[in-house]
Amino acid sequence: MRWYVVASLLTVLTSSQGILTTLSQSNGGYKYDYATVPFLAEVFKLLVSSVFLWREMQNSPPPKMMMDWKSVRLYPIPSIIYLIHNNVQFATLTYVDTSTYQIMGNLKIVTTGILFRLFLKRKLTNLQWMAIILLAVGTTTSQVKGCGEASCDSFFSSPIQGYLFGALSACLSALAGVYTEFLMKKNNDSLYWQNVQLYTFGSIFNMGRLLMDDFRSGFEEGPWWQRIFNGYNMTTWLVVLNLGTTGLLVSWLMKYADNIVKVYATSMAMLLTMVLSVILFNFKPTVQLFLGIIICMMSLHMYFAPPSTLVDLPLTVKPVSESVSEVPAERKTDS
Amino acid sequence: MRWYVVASLLTVLTSSQGILTTLSQSNGGYKYDYATVPFLAEVFKLLVSSVFLWREMQNSPPPKMMMDWKSVRLYPIPSIIYLIHNNVQFATLTYVDTSTYQIMGNLKIVTTGILFRLFLKRKLTNLQWMAIILLAVGTTTSQVKGCGEASCDSFFSSPIQGYLFGALSACLSALAGVYTEFLMKKNNDSLYWQNVQLYTFGSIFNMGRLLMDDFRSGFEEGPWWQRIFNGYNMTTWLVVLNLGTTGLLVSWLMKYADNIVKVYATSMAMLLTMVLSVILFNFKPTVQLFLGIIICMMSLHMYFAPPSTLVDLPLTVKPVSESVSEVPAERKTDS
Repeated sequence: MRWYVVASLLTVLTSSQGILTTLSQSNGGYKYDYATVPFLAEVFKLLVSSVFLWREMQNSPPPKMMMDWKSVRLYPIPSIIYLIHNNVQFATLTYVDTSTYQIMGNLKIVTTGILFRLFLKRKLTNLQWMAIILLAVGTTTSQVKGCGEASCDSFFSSPIQGYLFGALSACLSALAGVYTEFLMKKNNDSLYWQNVQLYTFGSIFNMGRLLMDDFRSGFEEGPWWQRIFNGYNMTTWLVVLNLGTTGLLVSWLMKYADNIVKVYATSMAMLLTMVLSVILFNFKPTVQLFLGIIICMMSLHMYFAPPSTLVDLPLTVKPVSESVSEVPAERKTDS
Repeated sequence: MRWYVVASLLTVLTSSQGILTTLSQSNGGYKYDYATVPFLAEVFKLLVSSVFLWREMQNSPPPKMMMDWKSVRLYPIPSIIYLIHNNVQFATLTYVDTSTYQIMGNLKIVTTGILFRLFLKRKLTNLQWMAIILLAVGTTTSQVKGCGEASCDSFFSSPIQGYLFGALSACLSALAGVYTEFLMKKNNDSLYWQNVQLYTFGSIFNMGRLLMDDFRSGFEEGPWWQRIFNGYNMTTWLVVLNLGTTGLLVSWLMKYADNIVKVYATSMAMLLTMVLSVILFNFKPTVQLFLGIIICMMSLHMYFAPPSTLVDLPLTVKPVSESVSEVPAERKTDS
């Protein structure tokens, strides 16, 4: 499968995630415990990956699977980073309002680019750096509070701790992504085997979170496993299925494409969600959404289009590279 | 003089024009007749250009001056276009509110690019086209009404005539610029002689406008020449001087640079004015201003930076071009 097909699918599914989650609410609230959704999604991903791995093991040659502890122990790390990230997010929200929080979230696009360069040693051209910054600017633009909206706090009026926690949150989010890419690419183990490891730890950590919630509430409503499907309906199951599928697509992208592709897919999904909200929920279209879409489209094109379609390369370039690849070696020195 | 020095000067002076005009108001209104300002600025430009032309005529060889009617008759055309443009602007404002009007004004950046391509046959790379669109998007972003601002009409709620007149206005504004560039570059006449022709007609048309205003008001306050300096103070004179100087700089750019350079200079000036307003008049800085500045800076870089600094040219290119310029011919075939 081509990476852009997977990326487009991820965009559509991530976008429907927002719509489905909204639809799964009744009277503006959740009838079910939202923390059960990521747990069930992890279990779903684990099951799917196990089935695929099992099928792969019937084939010959069998899939490559590194099973020693030195390799396996690397797989809980993304879950640990996400755990820390969740707590930092929580801390951020005690200092800033949700709209400032949402705007700062776009910073993770830039931090992903930076960690992608630093840790994965992937070089980007200046134009690609500009594209990444523009993507962050574009998504932020689309989120600027319009005139007449209820909450009206200034972006620049939060305490300094809020911005620091926001920046830390953006770094952790980027770190989780970049680390997962490193993990998936570090050897040519079967994707499904890597997934099984990743999602086993994911399920455990999510289960731990449900248990923590129970302890925090003093088991008032009983342990999580007794009420896990309380309030679930068809839409809730679609939310779980959808979240699981997007997770599997992200894994695929981490192995066969990269973090930047993922960042573009999820940013485009955010814009798509806003457009769909205008259509489905009669939201008012704003100029800033329109501007944000243009900026992100430009950014997409700047990042992925072949440079030769963007700028006029010197005329001498093409003949040279063509002759290198196409003419026999003995003719190379003729020119 | 280098074009970017002139362009930077134009940016600073255009920006101070906004500040000075605000400072020249008392109690939110003008004590003087604002229509006298462009007229006096035209006269100022005519005087300055005449002095420079006269000095040039003392030199040998004398400046090139095409004086036949076939050439001279082209010079009132910019004034005529501006006259039509003023009336279209007026018509636009009867359909849309000032904030929608201001936002549509950014369309002239894109129409200038289009007419620049069509009439002056100047080719732009895809990246430069994207830069031009981003410049328009960036200036628009900075103008998006923030939350809590007084006027709160939706951009998309004006009658269709408003948008059509707005588009026509953007085309006329671009046409005036592109036509002036054509005029200044069509032969190598002395810049000062071209200016003298341009500003003679400019002065006449502006005088006509003052006279029209007098007729419209039934000469209630007497003819314009009797009250031309009424309410003038030091700041008003600075406004006139400043407007005249920016006009001269634009003429220079039209002859020795081009319309796109001018468009960048005036767009940057708009942003600079907003930043200065935050500092000088204690305006609240908005996220959208901050985002607009980033977008416009990216656009500037995309348009003017040499492509080789933006993208990685194929590796084979550099050695070849270096070997051509640096190593003796007989070593070329060694590699």
